[in-house]
Amino acid sequence: MSRQMQQDSATMPTAPGGASTGHGLDWPALFATRAERMKASEIRELLKLLDQPDVISFAGGIPDPALFPADAFGAALTSALSGDSKGAALQYSVSEGYKPLRDWLVTRMASLGVECSADNIMITSGSQQALDYLGKLFLSPRDTALVGWPTYLGALQAFNAYEPSYDRLTPLGNRSAADYRETAQGKGGPGGGKVKFAYASADFANPTGETLQASARENILDLATELDIAVIEDAAYQSLRYDGDEVPPLLALDIERNGGIDNTRTIYCGSFSKTLAPGLRVGWVCAAKPVISKLVLMKQAADLHSATLNQMAIHQVASDGFEAQVARIKATYMARRDAMLAALARHMPEGVTWTRPDGGMFVWVTLPEHFDGAALLAESIRIERVAFVPGKAFFADGSGANTIRLSFSCASEAMIEEGIMRLGRVVRGG
Amino acid sequence: MSRQMQQDSATMPTAPGGASTGHGLDWPALFATRAERMKASEIRELLKLLDQPDVISFAGGIPDPALFPADAFGAALTSALSGDSKGAALQYSVSEGYKPLRDWLVTRMASLGVECSADNIMITSGSQQALDYLGKLFLSPRDTALVGWPTYLGALQAFNAYEPSYDRLTPLGNRSAADYRETAQGKGGPGGGKVKFAYASADFANPTGETLQASARENILDLATELDIAVIEDAAYQSLRYDGDEVPPLLALDIERNGGIDNTRTIYCGSFSKTLAPGLRVGWVCAAKPVISKLVLMKQAADLHSATLNQMAIHQVASDGFEAQVARIKATYMARRDAMLAALARHMPEGVTWTRPDGGMFVWVTLPEHFDGAALLAESIRIERVAFVPGKAFFADGSGANTIRLSFSCASEAMIEEGIMRLGRVVRGG
Repeated sequence: MSRQMQQDSATMPTAPGGASTGHGLDWPALFATRAERMKASEIRELLKLLDQPDVISFAGGIPDPALFPADAFGAALTSALSGDSKGAALQYSVSEGYKPLRDWLVTRMASLGVECSADNIMITSGSQQALDYLGKLFLSPRDTALVGWPTYLGALQAFNAYEPSYDRLTPLGNRSAADYRETAQGKGGPGGGKVKFAYASADFANPTGETLQASARENILDLATELDIAVIEDAAYQSLRYDGDEVPPLLALDIERNGGIDNTRTIYCGSFSKTLAPGLRVGWVCAAKPVISKLVLMKQAADLHSATLNQMAIHQVASDGFEAQVARIKATYMARRDAMLAALARHMPEGVTWTRPDGGMFVWVTLPEHFDGAALLAESIRIERVAFVPGKAFFADGSGANTIRLSFSCASEAMIEEGIMRLGRVVRGG
Repeated sequence: MSRQMQQDSATMPTAPGGASTGHGLDWPALFATRAERMKASEIRELLKLLDQPDVISFAGGIPDPALFPADAFGAALTSALSGDSKGAALQYSVSEGYKPLRDWLVTRMASLGVECSADNIMITSGSQQALDYLGKLFLSPRDTALVGWPTYLGALQAFNAYEPSYDRLTPLGNRSAADYRETAQGKGGPGGGKVKFAYASADFANPTGETLQASARENILDLATELDIAVIEDAAYQSLRYDGDEVPPLLALDIERNGGIDNTRTIYCGSFSKTLAPGLRVGWVCAAKPVISKLVLMKQAADLHSATLNQMAIHQVASDGFEAQVARIKATYMARRDAMLAALARHMPEGVTWTRPDGGMFVWVTLPEHFDGAALLAESIRIERVAFVPGKAFFADGSGANTIRLSFSCASEAMIEEGIMRLGRVVRGG
């Protein structure tokens, strides 16, 4: 448990500190200005110390490895490395990605309401790489990215490398395009900065677990159309719905408005990390051809292509039983979500509120104003041996000190009951 | 043959052209300024048309897939997906890379004269990713990178995303630090640009096949010390030496000068692509800890980590028989190099010169001044069905029209004799 806890983007450990041991170079003076925004998180350093078996962790936000289809992957890899395909499986391949996998994704996207061709799809090394590439494609220093308050920490980390400003994306339709535009110009210095895209995780978002309903998605598309900017739709958790009806992806709604994917402004980022396995690093981008063409040139220059063998294995396992695998993990995670919501209702004192996600891996807890999530974590670990992620890091403006993120994906129902009971004691003590 | 030909970074095909099919967005207006420097190469488009079995190709520059240890990889992957390791093999892992592989690399680097610890090593998705990350770490727009004329095209492509200027690195020690500094300031506009690093492929470089002798390496370190800049050592081909004694890596010479790796300015980029297999995308960076620490943060934000399973498989195959595998491929490539050098001597007319590489995959041919490599390629394909890469793309200043790159790694000795004979006829006709 404690090892897994360290391993999502919010909690991944880093190498030992940056100080040189001798009379080395003044590296910071040589680094590009963007390097100043690449910092180790204090929380992550704290969580590194927690590699202890008696800690119950709700920090991770990663899939339960017991649910990985390891045998299916073993068979797929053995097959890829036998017979005619073995040379190709280990050789360089094209930057766009393995064509049979892109074809499979065309069918998958169609089932979500997105009609496209293989030329609208590029394979990435996980959807994190898609976020990095999209930051690289759109953001010059001082451009503005619209993100939620809170939003996925990994998106902020990916975009930060390109030195943007952030403004708050609200899906309520209550702020005018002119207001967004003026704010971006004000932040851009002489000449003015431009708003380049709105980033949103539409389903069971990390960290809140919340889903944007169709009206909120339409609001985002309205705003993006008025601003004439792109929309980045992070669909990492989309397949993990436990209740309610599917809401069409932003990209599907955009196609409805504009008659075809090549006329849309929405860039959909998908991932196999939450459904099949994250360790193979396979995700995809689905968007208008001019965007995919440029991303392919970028990928060629950045890492040539994602691992050939991994794309073949994902294709085989997805073709043989994607739906069955997803059904299996949904049953497990849904029971854990239910256990966490029930335990929160039992053990949290008055004044504490939380989200009730229809899917995904996260519940987002808002504590009374005077709480500080980081201080609470220190207390919680020391006294009750329970871990979670303080919410502040998910806010581009540094607010949210009284929020925390709980993940239910990697704990058994019994551990969830015990852990939330302990957490309730800490909160009552705060 | 013709499929393989397309698949190194000089020749990899791209997605269909960037024009939108409908009334889509004005994407170029939304893209960051860096996107202007990401362009499809005309040569690459030409070579895409060549997927025909009767063409003899010296264009690729990729390993011969017949030499991949496919059975060893099959066994390693099966083992990683069995028993206790199977959850970890498919799970998220740390950004630094798989510890047993980093430990193996510590021993490997020691055998090259580089004493280091696992904290001096980060795993990358091929050495191409290391070049991208190092461009990202050091280059702000208008900073200067020193590169050879010619140099590895993929390095220029990786660095271009960060909008640098280039200046010519000569290993002859005949240009002063002050001169480099002034040139960089002149290119940087108001405030001035800075030289950030010198990039060099020290052994059997792509594209020339040439090796920097120890004195040339010392010259580069002298210059870098005077300019107080980093040195990026691209060691992708280093293991493929067929003749002569090993020359210590720049990083080893730097350690000798400065007493320990954490006091050095040299960043070594290694790869398993030319020795074990490129399709798994596993390489590494070895450098002072302050550089590795920053790269780990960067990697975490950019793609979380390289595929876990692939690192495990590379570790297993390398541990079981790296030296035997390298000996096997060296014997094959050496015979092909010899065949190509002999064929060039037999078939090339007066006035044509070429390099005599001690290793690697490339011979670099210089034709009389009036030749144009791109025009020669068109002729050569049309009349004689022989392909190669025109040299101009390897020059940051657009010179080198009368040069061509020949790769001997993927053609049998008989094909080499036949292909060079045909090429000789085309050159005589030019």
